[in-house]
Amino acid sequence: MQLRKFNVKLNKIDHVMISHLHGDHFFGLMGMISTMHLFKRIKDLHVYGPPDLSEIIVSILRYSKSYLNFKLVFHPLESDTPELIFENEILTVHTIPLTHGIRCNGFIFREKPKPRKINKETMPEGFSLQNIARLKMGLDIVDGEGNLIYKNEELTLPEKVSFSYAYCSDTTYNENIIPLIRNVSLLYHESTFGTDMEQRAIETYHSTAKQAAIIAQKANVSKLILGHFSVRYKDLEPLLSEAKGIFHETILAREGESIILEH
Amino acid sequence: MQLRKFNVKLNKIDHVMISHLHGDHFFGLMGMISTMHLFKRIKDLHVYGPPDLSEIIVSILRYSKSYLNFKLVFHPLESDTPELIFENEILTVHTIPLTHGIRCNGFIFREKPKPRKINKETMPEGFSLQNIARLKMGLDIVDGEGNLIYKNEELTLPEKVSFSYAYCSDTTYNENIIPLIRNVSLLYHESTFGTDMEQRAIETYHSTAKQAAIIAQKANVSKLILGHFSVRYKDLEPLLSEAKGIFHETILAREGESIILEH
Repeated sequence: MQLRKFNVKLNKIDHVMISHLHGDHFFGLMGMISTMHLFKRIKDLHVYGPPDLSEIIVSILRYSKSYLNFKLVFHPLESDTPELIFENEILTVHTIPLTHGIRCNGFIFREKPKPRKINKETMPEGFSLQNIARLKMGLDIVDGEGNLIYKNEELTLPEKVSFSYAYCSDTTYNENIIPLIRNVSLLYHESTFGTDMEQRAIETYHSTAKQAAIIAQKANVSKLILGHFSVRYKDLEPLLSEAKGIFHETILAREGESIILEH
Repeated sequence: MQLRKFNVKLNKIDHVMISHLHGDHFFGLMGMISTMHLFKRIKDLHVYGPPDLSEIIVSILRYSKSYLNFKLVFHPLESDTPELIFENEILTVHTIPLTHGIRCNGFIFREKPKPRKINKETMPEGFSLQNIARLKMGLDIVDGEGNLIYKNEELTLPEKVSFSYAYCSDTTYNENIIPLIRNVSLLYHESTFGTDMEQRAIETYHSTAKQAAIIAQKANVSKLILGHFSVRYKDLEPLLSEAKGIFHETILAREGESIILEH
């Protein structure tokens, strides 16, 4: 329902990553799968999540005597250490093992280095396709004996930044994730409570806004989004200002909002 | 989410009846149960549905290591014949076995006869509490030897109508349900297709609008609501007029709408 509300086309979704088996993180999955079936999806759907998720999906389909008209490829996430779970031409996805009382993973999405673009202003005529390919890969132009003819930067535009996004929900405060998320462009870190509820955060394997900010600061990320707020907080400003006191580049997650990353 | 959207208070819900295990009929249940838990519900919740539903609920709670802070009382509906599944001072609920390829039940809610109200205009003074109780139960007033003193109607207002509501979704056209729903005040009957798709209705164990109307007419109900429309029908008027051709007192179900029953 949220996907429909925010005009996300179901047919654009080929990969779904589920962090853990608490209801607020996967109860919508079966509805989405059923809707894809109803709308005659035929291409594969890849689902990544805790091994038990596969049993839940299979048993619900079996009880309802439903046979999907597309292939659902399940990828069980069983490792306690970070693993590469997806890769294509433009990005990689790795898991971030989190601490939440039950098996739980965050995910980090990293754009691969982008090919350099030719600078049409400075480009001499008559360059071979081979040399253009060298330039796009970031290499210099040399003659048959290896002597420099053009430095790459003379003929290409400045390199485009590759962005990265780390999604960490739900987790207790855990410094082990810092090396995994270091320098990311954007970090989503759960912030269920404020510091007033720090003890409750520990008991329920959640974090406070301040703890999220400490992780962001120690990992030197560019920007932090706080989310997963307890319903007890009608006003989220205190959580935001608590985090900003530690790490200024912090914003509150809002459902349906798009965040544009810029260099 | 729909309950919240239409301002239905979760704490007013003590009994939930699930017809069958197709996703559009129960995928919201776990979310509702989790939300009740999150909002600190303590009173029992009664869930009635196909036996497999209990396994789904238990396994999802087990996988998530969740322990509800209220008691969930599950009532498996295993009978192939109608059964009384709930009764209190004001109503009864019986199942309506439906034909849908998997175990599926409709439900019929019947108000019990309502106590008659004393007519203050015609009531003589000095009546005993015993005699007033007799009047409310619809009995006449007699003397010690059984001779009539007042007929009940002289001292009470006209009896209030007891309403009944039958919910039948999903089902193929099935005349076996007619004796079970005869004379109900309101019948909800699925109408997934129009007559143009009658063959498809048979194959998928669904009904057409016309078939729903035939059931309504043969069962002599007061009013029919059509619902559970296939997404292929952008305009539902053809389904409505198809049904009205057979049974005039037909309306289309609209999400969130309340229907007031009047004599």
